Amino acid sequence: MAAEIVNPRSDKSTDGTQDEFFDPAFALHRGGKMAVQATVPVRDKDDLSLAYTPGVAKVCSAIAEHPELVHDYTWKSQVVAVVTDGSAVLGLGDIGPEASLPVMEGKAILFKQFGGVDAVPIALDCREVDDIVETVVRLAPSFGGVNLEDISAPRCFEVERKLQERLDIPIFHDDQHGTAVVTLAALRNAARVTDRTLGQLRAVISGAGAAGVAIAKILVEAGIGDVAVCDRKGIVSQDRDDLTDVKRELAGFTNKAGRSGTLASALDGADVFIGVSGGTVPEEAVAKMAENALIFAMANPTPEIHPDVAHKYAAVVATGRSDYPNQINNVLAFPGIFAGALQVRASRITEGMKLAAAEALAAVVADELSAECVIPSPFDERVAPAVTAAVAAAARAEGVARR
Amino acid sequence: MAAEIVNPRSDKSTDGTQDEFFDPAFALHRGGKMAVQATVPVRDKDDLSLAYTPGVAKVCSAIAEHPELVHDYTWKSQVVAVVTDGSAVLGLGDIGPEASLPVMEGKAILFKQFGGVDAVPIALDCREVDDIVETVVRLAPSFGGVNLEDISAPRCFEVERKLQERLDIPIFHDDQHGTAVVTLAALRNAARVTDRTLGQLRAVISGAGAAGVAIAKILVEAGIGDVAVCDRKGIVSQDRDDLTDVKRELAGFTNKAGRSGTLASALDGADVFIGVSGGTVPEEAVAKMAENALIFAMANPTPEIHPDVAHKYAAVVATGRSDYPNQINNVLAFPGIFAGALQVRASRITEGMKLAAAEALAAVVADELSAECVIPSPFDERVAPAVTAAVAAAARAEGVARR
Repeated sequence: MAAEIVNPRSDKSTDGTQDEFFDPAFALHRGGKMAVQATVPVRDKDDLSLAYTPGVAKVCSAIAEHPELVHDYTWKSQVVAVVTDGSAVLGLGDIGPEASLPVMEGKAILFKQFGGVDAVPIALDCREVDDIVETVVRLAPSFGGVNLEDISAPRCFEVERKLQERLDIPIFHDDQHGTAVVTLAALRNAARVTDRTLGQLRAVISGAGAAGVAIAKILVEAGIGDVAVCDRKGIVSQDRDDLTDVKRELAGFTNKAGRSGTLASALDGADVFIGVSGGTVPEEAVAKMAENALIFAMANPTPEIHPDVAHKYAAVVATGRSDYPNQINNVLAFPGIFAGALQVRASRITEGMKLAAAEALAAVVADELSAECVIPSPFDERVAPAVTAAVAAAARAEGVARR
Repeated sequence: MAAEIVNPRSDKSTDGTQDEFFDPAFALHRGGKMAVQATVPVRDKDDLSLAYTPGVAKVCSAIAEHPELVHDYTWKSQVVAVVTDGSAVLGLGDIGPEASLPVMEGKAILFKQFGGVDAVPIALDCREVDDIVETVVRLAPSFGGVNLEDISAPRCFEVERKLQERLDIPIFHDDQHGTAVVTLAALRNAARVTDRTLGQLRAVISGAGAAGVAIAKILVEAGIGDVAVCDRKGIVSQDRDDLTDVKRELAGFTNKAGRSGTLASALDGADVFIGVSGGTVPEEAVAKMAENALIFAMANPTPEIHPDVAHKYAAVVATGRSDYPNQINNVLAFPGIFAGALQVRASRITEGMKLAAAEALAAVVADELSAECVIPSPFDERVAPAVTAAVAAAARAEGVARR
């Protein structure tokens, strides 16, 4: 997203005593967006002697003797670390850890508001994959799960993989999997609305970063007919010799048709466009898509294909924006996914848990399905409980639940 | 503190469906003692567009451009990391990071309750000094200060020193300095009650760990007449050849009288006993202290000298326990010290700030001073504001305040 840069010093209120901004976003952010609260009373010495010394010592000793009790008698199992290095923040790019904090706080309060999950922003002052991994491993005793956020590709893939190898708590890179889950849910419903199965669809993803790669993976797992991923140089195909490891892997399990060429050529006859790239797709290319096209132009604030243009050719249009129908918003997924995983103390978040989350999310609007409603509103209160329950059940079914 | 070990499995309620303990400390700790809360509304898409995308992007961009704005528009400047490695937890010793979490949560809620400071437990799975330091340095962008807790000596000294060198936020090892500040405050008042100045007192500290070392330092800075520190082998004196670096330094600035020998010999004619060791001091040794002795036997739950015995020889008796008068409790210091330091965005917590905290804390009970009241109750609501104001003023006076 291209953010409007506000010069904070030029916007001071005129009396000179306030350092407030006229922009309501600044007023809202003053002092931050979150706080810690005690959930037990500390009013008198009796309270203190239970919540702190000497009472707390018995609880510590019990955990030392029976380590699994940490889940019962601390907040560990309900708190997620929202970890970033500030290298790929929204569309702003590499703004560093401290400037990323407002996003991490935002994420933390969404965890709480939508999933009842406590979350703590952890913006790290390091960039090497192994440094990030080692730091998170050292922090892990305090947290029930780790939500990776706004870490640039391709490091984000390696950070996630290495953390999953070393820790037995849920590790989830939301920019990848949150986006993928919500996209799949919306696509399932869009296929239903247009009387097709996923297997009948050929999709094109514009963008081979964190979101594009994860969406490609989940669509293949969910049985999409075919999917081609395009980066700036065109279709990610096995005949290219300029691919990173991640894209080479991608070329191996996508693009069954073996196409090569530009995004425009990929779109010729395609059923689905999924934009996670920014940039603009020319209308001529959109016009060549198959009938009943499904267009998910998710770049913020400017969709790759303007909804007015998209509607000329598509049966279903989705964006990342809240002011159009069918908003693909990660908040539909991550709170419930973590809530479900934490509820059963899952050791990881499996592909099956993500697919179950997408299925449950799609099912929320099963009875009100239409071209304008393939995905619930972020404020639909049925969403988090449905996703939570589905993820918990899938974790049990997949053998990663520990209670 | 010797904690009673409760076998969690043997104390289950009899219906078998509850995993609750009969002990009220376990019931209170179920699910942990803290939570995160949003301080801004997230009720609808307008709220979301300010607290999260797209509105948050402007705030991030402003901080990227003017890094100091992170203090205004995030919770950084009001949140402290409570960092431990679980190596010296209460009197339980090395129980590891996860078993230490109940103490760290307790600390966090005391920060909130008494100082209005948000705090997050960070229990680290690493032990090397440099690993702890490097991890905290990487975490630092997210926090306004670091409270080190229950890290064993002598590593705790080096961890604190190295972090102070590398970071420009308050770093405070509470087991050292919190204890030292409260002890000094109580000792000032105890001297007043017995019509003496600190300069007229000769003190003996039993215990050369984190608390003992820090108390010795602050007493010397405050102008105590003389202080001798005893470890298990007796007085820490320059003629000993078995001293660690820290104790050698200690021998250099304490024990002006050049005594050597046992704790009992040190106590002969001493005015002040300060116990931060555990263990028991024989009554014969106590009996040889000077008239109007001041006895601070702070080991928990068993004071080094039982208050009944202490009162036979001392004019003022203090302990670490809440069921006797004059409780030396760190909660009297750390919330206000951090609140004051954060309020002015201090780059560090100086010796002057600690002395000011002790002075302010002592002054709270100036008008009601007696042998039974040399230190306020932890629940005295005048304490935190007084300490906060004094610490903020001292930070300004010492040139470490940044606003």
